Amino acid sequence: MATIKQVAKLAGVSVATVSRVLNDSGYVQADTRKKVEEAIKQLDFIPNEVARSLFKKESRLVGLLLPDITNPFFPELARGIEDELQKEGYYLLFGNSDEKLEKELNYIQTFVKNNVVGLISATNLADKSNYEHLSLPIVFLDRGPECEYSVFSDGKEGGRIAARELIKRGSEKITVLKGPSHVLPAQERFQGTIEVLGQSNVDFQVISTTSFSFLEAKAWAKEIFEKYPDTDGIIASNDITASAILHEALQQGKAIPDELQIIGYDDIQQSSLLFPSLSTIRQPIYEMGKEAARVLISLIKGEMIEQSQIKLAVSFVDRNTTRKAKE
Amino acid sequence: MATIKQVAKLAGVSVATVSRVLNDSGYVQADTRKKVEEAIKQLDFIPNEVARSLFKKESRLVGLLLPDITNPFFPELARGIEDELQKEGYYLLFGNSDEKLEKELNYIQTFVKNNVVGLISATNLADKSNYEHLSLPIVFLDRGPECEYSVFSDGKEGGRIAARELIKRGSEKITVLKGPSHVLPAQERFQGTIEVLGQSNVDFQVISTTSFSFLEAKAWAKEIFEKYPDTDGIIASNDITASAILHEALQQGKAIPDELQIIGYDDIQQSSLLFPSLSTIRQPIYEMGKEAARVLISLIKGEMIEQSQIKLAVSFVDRNTTRKAKE
Repeated sequence: MATIKQVAKLAGVSVATVSRVLNDSGYVQADTRKKVEEAIKQLDFIPNEVARSLFKKESRLVGLLLPDITNPFFPELARGIEDELQKEGYYLLFGNSDEKLEKELNYIQTFVKNNVVGLISATNLADKSNYEHLSLPIVFLDRGPECEYSVFSDGKEGGRIAARELIKRGSEKITVLKGPSHVLPAQERFQGTIEVLGQSNVDFQVISTTSFSFLEAKAWAKEIFEKYPDTDGIIASNDITASAILHEALQQGKAIPDELQIIGYDDIQQSSLLFPSLSTIRQPIYEMGKEAARVLISLIKGEMIEQSQIKLAVSFVDRNTTRKAKE
Repeated sequence: MATIKQVAKLAGVSVATVSRVLNDSGYVQADTRKKVEEAIKQLDFIPNEVARSLFKKESRLVGLLLPDITNPFFPELARGIEDELQKEGYYLLFGNSDEKLEKELNYIQTFVKNNVVGLISATNLADKSNYEHLSLPIVFLDRGPECEYSVFSDGKEGGRIAARELIKRGSEKITVLKGPSHVLPAQERFQGTIEVLGQSNVDFQVISTTSFSFLEAKAWAKEIFEKYPDTDGIIASNDITASAILHEALQQGKAIPDELQIIGYDDIQQSSLLFPSLSTIRQPIYEMGKEAARVLISLIKGEMIEQSQIKLAVSFVDRNTTRKAKE
């Protein structure tokens, strides 16, 4: 049985270089790589079991990077990804980035070190250099079409629908929560909403918010009613924010939906359990996760990808924080 | 440089046996292991880089098995685990078992194949043979003291508190949701509740439930009010079930908490956003995750474990689905 040392000697390179070729890690010049591969072939070199799996890229691990699993949007997404990956025998290495560049880079490095065969990332930092130099398949999730492979839902149309439904149902002084400026899907929704409101005859005002956290949502809810006590329609940036607003509105004795209509975004599972149950824009969250996994598996297998950017449709869920539409 | 073949020859065993010793996988007799280790020493055998990391057990991966990440209890738990592991440079391989034995076994196998250095499992199947033969550190989470290393909260006391608080606040016809019979923490709570109710003078009735799912919770909520329309206090098996009951009660026009008191279990983040906000028994979910990670890291490092079973305290969160306590 040939050793890695013999391979290195024949190829005229160091053992470390052979190891880099075997592991496909670090930089190796093309002609050096060729020499090593020829020596491996000539000596019929078989690396040991673990090294062989690396050589053949047989790892079954996929890295998954999410902003924060405690935001109820993401567990459903993760579940869709996992269910699809598991069917094909792939498994998840998982990390929360907290939308911090350092954490994100740290996780990407860890995933690569552990020989993941692909990466799914729900990130707002994709334009940074952290993804450019990676030589493995990557699918961006919940992100726009500027990425090579991405799965997202139609945020702009979702924002338009929210505005149209509130106007159609008679709100005339609408308050829009802008959503965190660094979260791209939130900004798409906001643009869609503003587009429709701008073309309409209703008054509207915008409140900027900086996160999707539970605690801050409560503070914004209070702020809305202090600043705009007579608003009769609120477009929230997600369902958690909408829940906090609904809570505050009921606390203040407002009649929902007669006096005030509220519309959320996402349709997380809890929204139908609120009372009154929350009208919202539904993203097909679980399906988005499944689609991302499907695209990634195709990339890993080297299959043809028919569509590299997959945009899923959103829809209005007509529950009880909005009134019946006028004919 | 010695090869694995030479090690096997000197030790008088097969290459596969040497590999098992190196990878610490599969069964190897103690004296065989000794022979192999002596041969390795004598020949100054250095496995290649990847094999060496296995030999030294340098993998930084920890397996995490949860029933279902879309149940809002578990993302908080996972977050606590991850935050603690990350501080020490460990990373998560993650799977949902759906409480199915086959899935659970499949994931355990995958974790072991990927050389995890430890395992955290929130399982209701720990008494099965699936964990016995594993030779790596395991911490059971959200499970009772029958396991060697476990972190859980005081479910029995939580169940007692829920019953005491409802009685103290004047409920006289209490309905108890039993919770899924295969979920051990749910059964502990139930036992605690029944213990207190049994010693009291109030009437009570029990409804059996089979899962913690959103959809089924709605059905049970309806069932309660059909069977026991005049119940004036409900002890739910978790916050999701309590949310569904609150929704149904408000739908039926019941005055909460004057006519009917409701108490949940868990204190997931959403519970404070309900209206009226949900009174509940708080489990320190995030802290439970952190504790489990701490115990596991100590086990991995071979440190002394002061306490192998960690029971965290629970507490009553007095919100607006319960009345003020009588003096």
